[in-house]
Amino acid sequence: MKKLKRSARLVELTQYLLNRPHTLIPLTTFADRYGAAKSSISEDLAIIKEVFEDEGMGDLQTFAGATGGVRFIPKMTKKQALLFAEDLCAQLEQRDRILPGGYLYMSDLLGEPSLMNEAGKIFATAFAEKEIDCVMTVETKGIPLAYATGAQLNLPVVLVRRDHQVTEGSAVSINYVSGSHKSIHTMSLSRRALKEKSRVLIVDDFMKAGGTIQGMVDLLAEFNAEVAGVGVLVESGAVETEERLLHDYVSLAKLTAVDFKSKQILVSPGNYFES
Amino acid sequence: MKKLKRSARLVELTQYLLNRPHTLIPLTTFADRYGAAKSSISEDLAIIKEVFEDEGMGDLQTFAGATGGVRFIPKMTKKQALLFAEDLCAQLEQRDRILPGGYLYMSDLLGEPSLMNEAGKIFATAFAEKEIDCVMTVETKGIPLAYATGAQLNLPVVLVRRDHQVTEGSAVSINYVSGSHKSIHTMSLSRRALKEKSRVLIVDDFMKAGGTIQGMVDLLAEFNAEVAGVGVLVESGAVETEERLLHDYVSLAKLTAVDFKSKQILVSPGNYFES
Repeated sequence: MKKLKRSARLVELTQYLLNRPHTLIPLTTFADRYGAAKSSISEDLAIIKEVFEDEGMGDLQTFAGATGGVRFIPKMTKKQALLFAEDLCAQLEQRDRILPGGYLYMSDLLGEPSLMNEAGKIFATAFAEKEIDCVMTVETKGIPLAYATGAQLNLPVVLVRRDHQVTEGSAVSINYVSGSHKSIHTMSLSRRALKEKSRVLIVDDFMKAGGTIQGMVDLLAEFNAEVAGVGVLVESGAVETEERLLHDYVSLAKLTAVDFKSKQILVSPGNYFES
Repeated sequence: MKKLKRSARLVELTQYLLNRPHTLIPLTTFADRYGAAKSSISEDLAIIKEVFEDEGMGDLQTFAGATGGVRFIPKMTKKQALLFAEDLCAQLEQRDRILPGGYLYMSDLLGEPSLMNEAGKIFATAFAEKEIDCVMTVETKGIPLAYATGAQLNLPVVLVRRDHQVTEGSAVSINYVSGSHKSIHTMSLSRRALKEKSRVLIVDDFMKAGGTIQGMVDLLAEFNAEVAGVGVLVESGAVETEERLLHDYVSLAKLTAVDFKSKQILVSPGNYFES
């Protein structure tokens, strides 16, 4: 036990809470940790709560009673999220991203941990009230986004593989249809990776008709697990409504047009900002 | 501009710094942000620096002069790192991890964002003094570790693919030999993913002889880039020294024995703790 002045306690408490999102911490933990009275800790937390709320960083939930404590729920305001989305759109519209076949090069953006963490915070905000047991994605490009979201929600990440790997043990495999060519692919999930009846948040970097995500939904059924939500960084708006396999999802950006000839790309904020 | 009391400023400053590791922030930024005199900000930072150092959370570097400012270098003490490694070893020794072929099931551990972030902090500490431009890994299981490390070092992550993807544009592919069967594999990196002469930190989840990592080293040569360091979460000690392709690396855990019959697994802290 170490005795700390309020000023030092505030720094300590702030970093402690930021490192433990969505985790209930009993006040006694802090009282013991800092050799301070619970009343002083409560005053500290009131100060922190006010700053977090003024900054739009999230909620500091306090629970009274013996089982009481404090829990930090990281959030990003719609305003901050929109600024993020508009910046993302501007970067996605850089003409040199267009690849043969009208594909868009995004790996540089997906390679920025800070950018992924911001997106993860937005998904954590969008799904903060949902009851979720884990975050799921299929390899490869959605992985950083899934981990960023899982970190903010304090949830494990379940990774679906394209092929069955020797390092995964027994696995359940399914076939799914995806891509403009409606080609058949396989995805596989280790039997021990997911508990029955889990409530799963599906996250991916890009969605067109939604075949890949529908594949994950079908895979969840094999585990008697259910979808708690779907979040995609970028959705393609160039899809006929009847083609779209999935309708209930959150997107942060929407790719509305890619013209290979004129090298024109149009991206607007996703459906998260429509409501 | 908002005027904040010292108590609120300390909370604000702490979260601001924690969210921007390895980033030089001019004092004027804070002075303007909080409508406070630089001298007051300096006093705040002194308090934060002391707490960070007492907690072994890292260094708060302050630079005087017009170009001066402050930079947070996240670190973990060897003692804290060893506690992490010992816990990791204990979990890896759970007998039900053994898979046919003597492989070890690790996906549950690799699926814990908080665990990956701790490991990332250790690598960020181990390579804090190195001059590094980006973190590199090859899909799939090393990705969360690479991002956790990149986030702590404020560096982008470069992702090597097993096959050439349409979404990557033109790419450089190489063949490499890996696994106990010395089988030939291919790995591929988008031309635009890595700048010439980059200094690269290679990160992966598991290393046996080091064939896969040697493949990444060979790939770097194709880009006239160089290796700044190599970090692996778990290394296999069951390798003859002459078999080992790689000798300069940091490991956090060492798998010394896996007995499929007796379901015995032996794991000890890695070479990071030998020095």
